[in-house]
Amino acid sequence: MVDLETALAEHKKRKGKYEILSKAPLTSRDELSTFYTPGVAYVSEAIAKDVSKVYDYTTKSNTIAIVSNGTRVLGLGSIGPEAALPVMEGKAILFKKFGGVDAIPLCIKTKDESEIIKFVNEIAPSFGGINIEDIESPQSFRIVDALSKSLDIPVLHDDQQGTAVVVLAALFNALKLVGRTKNVKIVVNGAGSAGVGIVRLLTHAGFRNIYVVDSTGLIYKNRKENMNEFKEEIAGVTNGERKSGSLYDAVSGADVLVGVSVKGAFTKEMIARMAEKPIVFALANPFPEISYEEGKAAGAYIVATGSSTAPNQVNNVLAFPTLMRGLLDVRAKGLNYEILESAGHAIAKSVGKELSSEKIVPDPLDAKAMIKVASNVSAAVAISAMKTGMARLEKNPKEIKKQTADLVKRYWKIEKKILK
Amino acid sequence: MVDLETALAEHKKRKGKYEILSKAPLTSRDELSTFYTPGVAYVSEAIAKDVSKVYDYTTKSNTIAIVSNGTRVLGLGSIGPEAALPVMEGKAILFKKFGGVDAIPLCIKTKDESEIIKFVNEIAPSFGGINIEDIESPQSFRIVDALSKSLDIPVLHDDQQGTAVVVLAALFNALKLVGRTKNVKIVVNGAGSAGVGIVRLLTHAGFRNIYVVDSTGLIYKNRKENMNEFKEEIAGVTNGERKSGSLYDAVSGADVLVGVSVKGAFTKEMIARMAEKPIVFALANPFPEISYEEGKAAGAYIVATGSSTAPNQVNNVLAFPTLMRGLLDVRAKGLNYEILESAGHAIAKSVGKELSSEKIVPDPLDAKAMIKVASNVSAAVAISAMKTGMARLEKNPKEIKKQTADLVKRYWKIEKKILK
Repeated sequence: MVDLETALAEHKKRKGKYEILSKAPLTSRDELSTFYTPGVAYVSEAIAKDVSKVYDYTTKSNTIAIVSNGTRVLGLGSIGPEAALPVMEGKAILFKKFGGVDAIPLCIKTKDESEIIKFVNEIAPSFGGINIEDIESPQSFRIVDALSKSLDIPVLHDDQQGTAVVVLAALFNALKLVGRTKNVKIVVNGAGSAGVGIVRLLTHAGFRNIYVVDSTGLIYKNRKENMNEFKEEIAGVTNGERKSGSLYDAVSGADVLVGVSVKGAFTKEMIARMAEKPIVFALANPFPEISYEEGKAAGAYIVATGSSTAPNQVNNVLAFPTLMRGLLDVRAKGLNYEILESAGHAIAKSVGKELSSEKIVPDPLDAKAMIKVASNVSAAVAISAMKTGMARLEKNPKEIKKQTADLVKRYWKIEKKILK
Repeated sequence: MVDLETALAEHKKRKGKYEILSKAPLTSRDELSTFYTPGVAYVSEAIAKDVSKVYDYTTKSNTIAIVSNGTRVLGLGSIGPEAALPVMEGKAILFKKFGGVDAIPLCIKTKDESEIIKFVNEIAPSFGGINIEDIESPQSFRIVDALSKSLDIPVLHDDQQGTAVVVLAALFNALKLVGRTKNVKIVVNGAGSAGVGIVRLLTHAGFRNIYVVDSTGLIYKNRKENMNEFKEEIAGVTNGERKSGSLYDAVSGADVLVGVSVKGAFTKEMIARMAEKPIVFALANPFPEISYEEGKAAGAYIVATGSSTAPNQVNNVLAFPTLMRGLLDVRAKGLNYEILESAGHAIAKSVGKELSSEKIVPDPLDAKAMIKVASNVSAAVAISAMKTGMARLEKNPKEIKKQTADLVKRYWKIEKKILK
């Protein structure tokens, strides 16, 4: 694992992680007058006449904003916009590397919900999509819900939806391996952004036997303590019997246990109480609820974590760049659960013949696999966006598949040349 | 001159003019965990502890935002944020090409002055500088003045200050050629952003004999018609005798005539009324107040325009990228008139031995000359920022000179590789 000195030194050497590159030559008089004054005036006039042309002539077609106010960054809590910037820059270069998406980190100085909503509404003309990141919940949910209504571009909440998509992909493949269906009993530990996102997406995908546990215990309708509007929402679609109790109580007979909580939250005893061939996703970061090795030793048939040092890394990078790629390709007006579900299916399918209890999701370090993921997800997302009326453009999915692969490979070549 | 079809086709082919490039490799497990989780958490923590470290570890140190709401774009008027985007993208790649500055176009959907101010205050943590662009005046002045007070990073208003710097540079060299001093009579035609900026900077630089004319005529203290707070400000430092009259009246005996107004505003007869060896800057864009050839034919000793097809192109690109370069190099807290004046001197000096009535400013199409401008201006700006207490960092100007040249050359090499 990387140490403090290395991380600081590598960041200091580069002074951050992204730079701007021109797509237009500016050397001759003709080039300068085509891409800047006076020629650019023709382009501005064309857009002024028909604002939809902004997708044809500008970076809006491939550029998104990553917006954070730094109120919930990694496990570090509310550390402010400046301290959030290194994380958002990292996200930005992952968007480019794995989806060919140009993403701009905008870390902003406000904690006020309506100010954040106003801010994003104001910048929307310049961007083809928005990624909301590391804003504390439940504020983040209200912000994303409001923006999804007001904007005509997709708003992705990666903490919530990106995680949910990869969990769904991992779950599809895990259930395939154990030969079970959507009526499995699933326990989700954690009711923050990721927990709510997972429940929303699993419910949409047809899973009906879900139980959610937070620090107070099982969530059920009209629970008195430690509730909010989003936990109420969850309570409405999970735990039909309104059971109370601890995580230990909840896991009894569960087929699947998903942790989006804290280090060490799962014990051997809990796994022992689960159904046969337990499936355990311990996704707390950087330290899982139970390690891969301990999970397996406790009898889990499949264990996945967020760590890159064990098999089955459930990593959002499988979802957010590729999902946004597909949305940009059809100039999407928004994002919905059909699209998210289709992305989950596409990630699951990308594993192909290598599917095993030690490989339920593609490996982000396998370049070839990641190009396959990008192609499959962008095409699936585009199809789903077209089907659900979210696409401004109709496109041939095969074309999108090829285009995505070309775009990603092109960028890798550039990176190799420049970063050598 | 470029035609409509070419401009549209070239923009459509590229879908805008900039993209993101990673400065950090993301191929191995070690690299991913250094630049993203878990390693990036060390960097975020370091900044959370000491927010000034954001300059060491992030893109803030080299990145600015170009903010426009599209209410006054080129000569096109209020065309909206989407239509302004191609212009801001052009500006962004010029910032990179001639100053090695990473600039992000943010075209925003609001015409409300206090909303714009709030917006820029909110994004400031992510950026080392701000460039306010193509916002209608006099609103733009109030916005820039408010932001200059509230922010601890420099706020450049290129329409106002960038133009003024290049005019000052051209004026220094023109006066050298005619052997005159700061007591020359100067008439400025136009009292928009550029006009006000020119008067502010010339006044700061010690010019005392200035007359400003707008569409109503000579501006003087307590004029009744067509005034605003910024014309009142101008009236306070120009036209001491409170003369009224037309542009034709005003040019009588003038040494210098500067147009930042509209096509065709200057006539042969006006130039004939000027003092000996008239100096005429006809800067309306894309068509000057009088063409280079007509100006010369009317007896002007020196003519400068905004056009790239005649000698003496007064082009903001000489100022904005190089000025911002110097400000970023010392992590400037703000911008002041001393700094702007020093930039004007540095541009003027960059002409060197080639100085003639046909070469009063460097040629933006001359690569070697532009590297010299970048080096000279960034060093001069840094010195001035250090002297006036605006610098967070003390740096050796020689080092800045060399660093700027290296940075610009490095980028040109990259561009050559990628755009070939």
